[in-house]
Amino acid sequence: MSVTTARIMRPDDANIVGNVHGGTILKMIEEAGCIIGTRHCNTQSGDRCAAQLARVERTDFLYPMFIGEVAHVSAEITYASKHSVEVQVHVMSENILTGATKMTNRAALWYVPFSLKNVDNVTEVPPIKYASPGQEEEGKKRYEAQKMERLETKERNGELLMPVSAPDRTTKEPYTVGFSQSSLIHLVGPSDCTLHGFVHGGVTMKLMDEVAGIVAARHCKTNIVTASVDAINFHRKIMKGCVVTVSGRATFASNKSMEIEVFVDADPLIEAEKGKYRAVTAFFTYISLDKQGKPLPIPPMKLEGDGEQRRFEDGKMRYLQNKAKRLADKERQQ
Amino acid sequence: MSVTTARIMRPDDANIVGNVHGGTILKMIEEAGCIIGTRHCNTQSGDRCAAQLARVERTDFLYPMFIGEVAHVSAEITYASKHSVEVQVHVMSENILTGATKMTNRAALWYVPFSLKNVDNVTEVPPIKYASPGQEEEGKKRYEAQKMERLETKERNGELLMPVSAPDRTTKEPYTVGFSQSSLIHLVGPSDCTLHGFVHGGVTMKLMDEVAGIVAARHCKTNIVTASVDAINFHRKIMKGCVVTVSGRATFASNKSMEIEVFVDADPLIEAEKGKYRAVTAFFTYISLDKQGKPLPIPPMKLEGDGEQRRFEDGKMRYLQNKAKRLADKERQQ
Amino acid sequence: MSVTTARIMRPDDANIVGNVHGGTILKMIEEAGCIIGTRHCNTQSGDRCAAQLARVERTDFLYPMFIGEVAHVSAEITYASKHSVEVQVHVMSENILTGATKMTNRAALWYVPFSLKNVDNVTEVPPIKYASPGQEEEGKKRYEAQKMERLETKERNGELLMPVSAPDRTTKEPYTVGFSQSSLIHLVGPSDCTLHGFVHGGVTMKLMDEVAGIVAARHCKTNIVTASVDAINFHRKIMKGCVVTVSGRATFASNKSMEIEVFVDADPLIEAEKGKYRAVTAFFTYISLDKQGKPLPIPPMKLEGDGEQRRFEDGKMRYLQNKAKRLADKERQQ
Repeated sequence: MSVTTARIMRPDDANIVGNVHGGTILKMIEEAGCIIGTRHCNTQSGDRCAAQLARVERTDFLYPMFIGEVAHVSAEITYASKHSVEVQVHVMSENILTGATKMTNRAALWYVPFSLKNVDNVTEVPPIKYASPGQEEEGKKRYEAQKMERLETKERNGELLMPVSAPDRTTKEPYTVGFSQSSLIHLVGPSDCTLHGFVHGGVTMKLMDEVAGIVAARHCKTNIVTASVDAINFHRKIMKGCVVTVSGRATFASNKSMEIEVFVDADPLIEAEKGKYRAVTAFFTYISLDKQGKPLPIPPMKLEGDGEQRRFEDGKMRYLQNKAKRLADKERQQ
Repeated sequence: MSVTTARIMRPDDANIVGNVHGGTILKMIEEAGCIIGTRHCNTQSGDRCAAQLARVERTDFLYPMFIGEVAHVSAEITYASKHSVEVQVHVMSENILTGATKMTNRAALWYVPFSLKNVDNVTEVPPIKYASPGQEEEGKKRYEAQKMERLETKERNGELLMPVSAPDRTTKEPYTVGFSQSSLIHLVGPSDCTLHGFVHGGVTMKLMDEVAGIVAARHCKTNIVTASVDAINFHRKIMKGCVVTVSGRATFASNKSMEIEVFVDADPLIEAEKGKYRAVTAFFTYISLDKQGKPLPIPPMKLEGDGEQRRFEDGKMRYLQNKAKRLADKERQQ
Repeated sequence: MSVTTARIMRPDDANIVGNVHGGTILKMIEEAGCIIGTRHCNTQSGDRCAAQLARVERTDFLYPMFIGEVAHVSAEITYASKHSVEVQVHVMSENILTGATKMTNRAALWYVPFSLKNVDNVTEVPPIKYASPGQEEEGKKRYEAQKMERLETKERNGELLMPVSAPDRTTKEPYTVGFSQSSLIHLVGPSDCTLHGFVHGGVTMKLMDEVAGIVAARHCKTNIVTASVDAINFHRKIMKGCVVTVSGRATFASNKSMEIEVFVDADPLIEAEKGKYRAVTAFFTYISLDKQGKPLPIPPMKLEGDGEQRRFEDGKMRYLQNKAKRLADKERQQ
């Protein structure tokens, strides 16, 4: 079971120099995943349901995409547990004039089906056929691994972060965390929502990339592009009629890239008694480019206080782990 | 009874060199038609209804439109049968700085009113006043002619076309049908729908133009623009919550233009038992332009197999008929 | 109680030379006001409600904003009467590369809460805490002043204005009112509406700025930008399923700026018996810029007939009053 979507990249999808935003691509990836997930979960009789994004595995942006190119997004169901499906997605960019194509992203998403009658009910997922028992075994391992990781990130979610939207560049020193910290606030509209009135995971990721991009641009003062996104867990759904606050702060910078932590808080506008809640957190990594698209060094961060120092060390560990993993993957492929 | 809408053309309405997409214009045309059609059909007591697009007559794109220009779309009801209305639409482009205006399109659309209470019920159309009995007679002739044509196209709708989104340029030879064949898939959102939750005909036509444009660009590798659209029949409505697959393939190329056949299939995401169905088919014609906007010759097609040969001959016939008709129209006007 | 929203300015937010439309900024201002107003009005038990824009005070566009900059919109509730709240809003532009920030707008908006159960019911507004009794007193004065002014503008609303969309530049002489008069028509879609299905005030203001901008560009034939907007009263809500006709005509021109009167009429598409009604009127002021962004003189208007002469004199009075007020404000600040 697979689906491929395609769309031309438009000016509003990209920054001023024509680079398509990472958030645009994440939104397309999630839309393809939502289609295939919802379709599969409705292939048997029983309650009608819609697939809701629960998690996105770490993804790298391998090549840039540009305005006028066609993005092809192919999604395939690769594992089904009792209550969730894994969808693997490939994104290709195509220059329709020269015919040049490039694989720009690979991603794996986990969806959970919720009943359309009662949106708190998770429905059962129909089984899928595997090419081999080994394939099912591999999928099960990925399923168990992500389940464990999801539990771990729940803890980090308690942290509070004051939204700082208006830049305070007079009192904050350049290259400090406070100097580039940013927030944006979005009122959920009908186009942001799925069939059962919850915000599409892709819409949330697009907002996250937008705020992380502002943080990176404030820090680097150059053309910055999304290099990778760490695994994102969608702990709680965001309802229609919410105000979403998305905040980002720099956590780590190597010479080549910088990491930005993003928090998404949802606030029901009408039912105030339900209270504000943390919906998502994630780490985005950005690189800085010159006018020819060549990488530029990232200005070092000026850390203030123990919290920033600790987060920097945590970020460094993630950076080194990812680097080691990339090298191992490369060797395995050779 | 008439209405005129107007809107400035924005970057997202156009391609990279600033030419407004044919699909943007078709969408505006349909929106004006929907307004005047719905308004007219609600002028008498009885069930409230919304006008749904049933057919668009062949339309030529006479002049290009550019970003920053204002598009003026005037729609007028010119004929009313018992269950449908004909709306004639004129599109003018205005350069608001120089004041230059041009008629860029003329189109005729047929709308059918569906009850808002029961969306399967077609309601009755209030009569309109004609300037003369001759005018009514002419309208009736157009009504009968399109009714006949609509029946004929139903047959072509059975044909299956595998969606091919990811370009396979390594195994396919340039200038073959397979090389440029394209598909795109769109999840219907709330902004795509009319008051009773069906996709606006204009939204569908914009998607069709988008996929046809990709086919043309893949074949020509140049700046391509929509030259004309053959009559389009909307056989079946597309419901909210559908996934729409739009596929295009080259059918004919003369030295000056190329014809692309487009298929629209709708797939209910949730109610899978309803099954996928063919909603619309149409022929789009494109021309290729150089950097100064001058027409370029179209690369000849490499045909493979009997099917492609047969479709090419059919396309050639349509091309010659349209050419003859254009000449006859010109002579009649002189 | 305050909220700050932020968003990057995209190509579709701006004109061809990159100046963000005044209407884009008005829409963001209103969205922030709607969030804070709705949030405040739901802080007590009782009927759930949504805040609907009733009035915007006169606002000046102090500096231009450009594509790629981040707009920061801060909204704060500054006064609460029994059935309305005053929201004061500040807009800052931030060039995220250079770090340069500018206050581009200040605005004051009045919102009225309507029950979500019965949209004709105005609910009660919870009281707010003032920093000092003097602050409450000042707010009360602003409240009484705007209440009076709202009554006065009701009269002007009766005036009829034929929508003129297609430009008639052959019969009209340049620089006459008829030459630049413009209309646009918009079918209300789901993304235009608030939680209870009425058009967002910000959406209406964006359309008003769009038509006023077309009038100004037709008159000046240059790059024009919004300089200020006079107080706007939203006398009647615009329902979902309406067609909105927005018409603009030049009323006054000094050497430095021109004033355009804008009328918004709503027409229920389905429930035709409810009839067309005037929803909003306002005055927009534009200035003309050369390619370097320097102000250009406005071509003098050619007045025809008593009505145009009278409206010109009225506009001149508003112009002189605003000028005097600006000077007085400046002196007070020194």
